[in-house]
Amino acid sequence: MQNFEFHNPTRILFGQGQIAALAKQVPAGAKVLMLYGGGSIKSNGVYDEVKAALSGHAVLEFGGIEPNPHFETLMQAVELARREQVGFLLAVGGGSVIDGAKFIAAAALYEGDAWDILSKGGKVIQAALPFGSVLTLPATGSEMNSASVITRHATQEKRGFMSRHVYPVFSVLDPAKTLTLPARQVGNGVVDAFVHVMEQYLTYPAQAPVQDRYAEGLLLTLIEEGPKALSQPDDLAVRANVMWSATMALNGLIGVGVPQDWSTHMIGHELTALYGLDHAQTLAIVLPGIMQVQREAKRAKLLQYAERVWGLRDGNDDSRIDAAIDATRRFFEQMGVPSRLSGYGLDASAIDAVVTALEAAGSVHLGEHHDIDSAATRAALTLSL
Amino acid sequence: MQNFEFHNPTRILFGQGQIAALAKQVPAGAKVLMLYGGGSIKSNGVYDEVKAALSGHAVLEFGGIEPNPHFETLMQAVELARREQVGFLLAVGGGSVIDGAKFIAAAALYEGDAWDILSKGGKVIQAALPFGSVLTLPATGSEMNSASVITRHATQEKRGFMSRHVYPVFSVLDPAKTLTLPARQVGNGVVDAFVHVMEQYLTYPAQAPVQDRYAEGLLLTLIEEGPKALSQPDDLAVRANVMWSATMALNGLIGVGVPQDWSTHMIGHELTALYGLDHAQTLAIVLPGIMQVQREAKRAKLLQYAERVWGLRDGNDDSRIDAAIDATRRFFEQMGVPSRLSGYGLDASAIDAVVTALEAAGSVHLGEHHDIDSAATRAALTLSL
Repeated sequence: MQNFEFHNPTRILFGQGQIAALAKQVPAGAKVLMLYGGGSIKSNGVYDEVKAALSGHAVLEFGGIEPNPHFETLMQAVELARREQVGFLLAVGGGSVIDGAKFIAAAALYEGDAWDILSKGGKVIQAALPFGSVLTLPATGSEMNSASVITRHATQEKRGFMSRHVYPVFSVLDPAKTLTLPARQVGNGVVDAFVHVMEQYLTYPAQAPVQDRYAEGLLLTLIEEGPKALSQPDDLAVRANVMWSATMALNGLIGVGVPQDWSTHMIGHELTALYGLDHAQTLAIVLPGIMQVQREAKRAKLLQYAERVWGLRDGNDDSRIDAAIDATRRFFEQMGVPSRLSGYGLDASAIDAVVTALEAAGSVHLGEHHDIDSAATRAALTLSL
Repeated sequence: MQNFEFHNPTRILFGQGQIAALAKQVPAGAKVLMLYGGGSIKSNGVYDEVKAALSGHAVLEFGGIEPNPHFETLMQAVELARREQVGFLLAVGGGSVIDGAKFIAAAALYEGDAWDILSKGGKVIQAALPFGSVLTLPATGSEMNSASVITRHATQEKRGFMSRHVYPVFSVLDPAKTLTLPARQVGNGVVDAFVHVMEQYLTYPAQAPVQDRYAEGLLLTLIEEGPKALSQPDDLAVRANVMWSATMALNGLIGVGVPQDWSTHMIGHELTALYGLDHAQTLAIVLPGIMQVQREAKRAKLLQYAERVWGLRDGNDDSRIDAAIDATRRFFEQMGVPSRLSGYGLDASAIDAVVTALEAAGSVHLGEHHDIDSAATRAALTLSL
């Protein structure tokens, strides 16, 4: 295990009916800016419950935060927060709204050009407005971490930042509010969480059995409960387990003291930027190919994954690795997320475009050993044509 | 899964050499009271490293905090902290020193009779001095939770409290500092951590696959690494995994949203109070008997434990449960901790004494379903004669 520092101060309020508990978490007297996305919270009751919980506060609203939230849109919220001297932000939605809240929180108190936060990274942030979240879509883990990914719409640049100043003060996770999610969002969320785990688990070298087993526990749970969330959409216990798995997948804990990969995300981001694919769709395409390309380097870990996650104990090492990669791909498909470029009407020209975009961004030494270069990326995507 | 609230603000600094990182964690200008136990930190280098890290601070010292720390001793430290207007406590040692620090932190700012904190519980605490810890003995998990157990020496009353005000601000976990621990403390620590997990895992009903698998991951790691810590005492990687397992065993995470038992601890506390057995020794005696006594009620969970933790898949249900309980007992013995009363020179008269003490304390409805009464306690201990 490598040395590490771990600190996650976000308070989790989990369970049906927990939105009402907001009232005690938002500082008394703070003017609140409520942030949300396309408005689904108005049809599923979340909006009304949040407003009721905030009845003792002055509340402003800013809706319309997009998936892959736009820098340009968020800057409008920054202006509003400054102008109205907002004291607390409340993100109500999925990862995009929460990621947006993190940026708004930091940018509202940043004196320079707010694009610095994305171009130079979280180190420029000295302070941020406090904020909480009400999560409506289990997927990104943003509700319990300090990371955010924002897209500059004008240039299609997708950039992330991390800062200890942007952990949510609290996050409300009410699985009952996820019962009405469209199947596509359920599938995407499960795939996103699964790949978050894989980026921290399928790495080497690592002598970290606790982190490994926690990661395997999340993968097994997502494999077990994810399909049930589609086939038994009214099962609240299933939704609760999916929701908690997605939060635990990226709250820092399974990644302490171990190398982290993130190449699948880096490559996937370019597919979203170029073709507008959902984030999880890009991950489903990229990961199986990357696993194949890294099969020699990650042989031992792939065999562990095959046995512990998929129960594959028969056959020789290579056949078990193949079977584990196939099983991964089939799981994504089972969640309704095609795992090949052709599933989205894309062909080999997309591979050229992605590689060119990665090269332009200088992202040509990906993975925890910086060994996923343009050729490896091309090979991985070719396996997912 | 039941509704829950989770918030653990302790910062973990993990790894070899991390004591030096203390310098940045202790508030500048704070007068520090350094707390420790019997003085082993002076022979293993920890004392010197801590003093060096605190060189920029005014530091007072209070040593001699006992295992099962005494209220009477701690009150002397409370007086010192008040008299010297100490601003920060630093516990350097194992769970007893950290538990002691929590009590001192709360009592120093408590205006009434400090025994209230133990007799009435943590709810009386409105504030506490901030404190950090340098852990030297992986076992209790106190370094990343808000619980403390203190003994009033005069009356042999052992009482616990919990309060959100007594999370350590930070804890330094340097596994290299555990290399010189005596085998008895290593064995005790692994058994203590193992039973912490079991008290949160071997419960019902629970539909919490993430928590189950996290718990199983810790049990498997302790089973795998614990004996190596005895047989390969110089292996730093093993010590790191044991240390992190023990912290994760009782930082709240595996216990969210699930019922918790704690009957083994309650019964064990009386064995310590009456006969001075080490805490872990009492747990090793009590748990196997409690598992037998609860075998019908906890049948499904015991079968899950048998299969997932001990790999027991053959034979009928009852034989697998028996084998799992036997394996648990053998594991404790392998760690050098006898699991029968006779191993400590005790006989059936100890059972009478424990049951009498529990009845006197009103502790006669133990376990998550309050169904472990005096007869069940007697039966459990009789199985461990």
